[in-house]
Amino acid sequence: MADAVEPILVVGSVALDTVHTPSETASDVLGGGASYFCLAGAMFAPIRLVAVVGEDFPPAHRALLQSRGVDLTGLEVRNGKTFRWTARYSGVRLEERETLDTQLNVFADFHPVLPPASRSSRVVFLSNIQPELQLEVIDQVEQASFVACDTIKLWLDTARSGLEQVFKRVDCVLVNDEEAVQFTGQRFLPAAARAILSYGPRMVIIKRGENGSLLFTADRVFLAPAHPLETVRDPTGAGDAFAGGLLGAVARAGHDGEDILRRGMLYGSVLGSLAVEDFSVRRIMQADRGEIEARLSTLVDMISLDGSRAT
Amino acid sequence: MADAVEPILVVGSVALDTVHTPSETASDVLGGGASYFCLAGAMFAPIRLVAVVGEDFPPAHRALLQSRGVDLTGLEVRNGKTFRWTARYSGVRLEERETLDTQLNVFADFHPVLPPASRSSRVVFLSNIQPELQLEVIDQVEQASFVACDTIKLWLDTARSGLEQVFKRVDCVLVNDEEAVQFTGQRFLPAAARAILSYGPRMVIIKRGENGSLLFTADRVFLAPAHPLETVRDPTGAGDAFAGGLLGAVARAGHDGEDILRRGMLYGSVLGSLAVEDFSVRRIMQADRGEIEARLSTLVDMISLDGSRAT
Repeated sequence: MADAVEPILVVGSVALDTVHTPSETASDVLGGGASYFCLAGAMFAPIRLVAVVGEDFPPAHRALLQSRGVDLTGLEVRNGKTFRWTARYSGVRLEERETLDTQLNVFADFHPVLPPASRSSRVVFLSNIQPELQLEVIDQVEQASFVACDTIKLWLDTARSGLEQVFKRVDCVLVNDEEAVQFTGQRFLPAAARAILSYGPRMVIIKRGENGSLLFTADRVFLAPAHPLETVRDPTGAGDAFAGGLLGAVARAGHDGEDILRRGMLYGSVLGSLAVEDFSVRRIMQADRGEIEARLSTLVDMISLDGSRAT
Repeated sequence: MADAVEPILVVGSVALDTVHTPSETASDVLGGGASYFCLAGAMFAPIRLVAVVGEDFPPAHRALLQSRGVDLTGLEVRNGKTFRWTARYSGVRLEERETLDTQLNVFADFHPVLPPASRSSRVVFLSNIQPELQLEVIDQVEQASFVACDTIKLWLDTARSGLEQVFKRVDCVLVNDEEAVQFTGQRFLPAAARAILSYGPRMVIIKRGENGSLLFTADRVFLAPAHPLETVRDPTGAGDAFAGGLLGAVARAGHDGEDILRRGMLYGSVLGSLAVEDFSVRRIMQADRGEIEARLSTLVDMISLDGSRAT
């Protein structure tokens, strides 16, 4: 990776996940939104992680993040246990999720404190932690030019006003389609997107899983197809991996022009598709730039109006 | 319309629909797959209709079809009543449908007999009637170069072997995503599409409503976005209107090259989006070519990788 590529700061959760599917179980695997983001984004740009883990966080997980050059200066290790999350997926394509257990552990008292070098970060991803913590990060990155936030249904229900503050102060909001409808009370996505844009962000990305993702800017809409999947082994982390691809493209380009955002949406789809093909971050770790570019070509061809194959 | 444009033959149902939504009811309005197809397709090419109605079929409905130049030579009028269908839509975006009543009436004994001129049709649409009737049409159009068929869940359950025969003998199969999964037993759409292609059609189109439509050919996939909707008043007929746009583009071009198919998918999305904005065919009747081209431009921009607005 060229030294010139803008580093990306990510703040979010690092967890130990236990995931059940109808046929398999993975126990205490590396999870948490920030972990997926780190390893997806590291395919494109240097990553700085700010998060917290307990003393039980396995050295192998730490080594895995370091193997991709993730800067762990901001990874606090506290007395106590790492955040643990247990869930079960079901349904024909594992589209139903039930959270069986959440143990916040050291994450319960987490307040992100950015290492001095990270405070000058220009590209920032706020993974789906509490809106109050997202605001604490925003207060610390005064030179940021592209701040994106993700959220989850829980904060729509319990921290709406905090979320509204976050939306006012970021450049890009990522939500899924159900969350967008719930948050805005608008049944149709264009109206829901406009309602979120009215808080202040320059763009809203509405994620629809296997149905692709929509990028709404002030006066344009882009549809990024999902990569045509042949299998899903563990849906966890697709959204954060998507964000890693998108912000990776922005960091690599050094700007967020519409052309970069649209291509970045496709990189997001590619990384999201990799995330779900195996448990934890395994499949992302297996991919190289060649495979990523090959999947990108498939997506480009899926939206090409050229009768002759573009790639 | 230029005389040179290939006429399209459509065989299917013409019905009187009664449609309930949570806030409105439309009674005895023009319905049936073939009606939607006729009026969507007539924006692009001359249409020949083969169907049956009863003596009660309102002259105003007949006049409406004629006003768009639809050739009604093949519209048989039988003693008895026209096919009637009653349904209720519900859900946030009217995505749930319950059929309340179906009276086949004269349709029960329908066997399509093509007028002599229609037997030379080269572009043919078999709307979602019984597979046996679709096969009867195929037997009568020996010069056809592009035959597309639609189907419904009922025939997957009750007429599977007939449907397999149809799939063997058409160029293009249109199904929705649930039907594709159900018919093939494949959970993921690429595998489901391959399974349908293995019967013999050159292409499969999987419709996903507001999530757009996928065109699978031997070695490529195209994603046509759904037009971003601001409202849905009556979802009836979207699939047949889609087919009208697609086959209209093929007829107009005089061939089914990949470039025409891809653009035709977008015209299909445009006509489908119009169909749902009002009851029956009202909204399609209101649209002119200018509005259709404007919606097409929106869709083209939704899948453009060009940072500057394409349109």
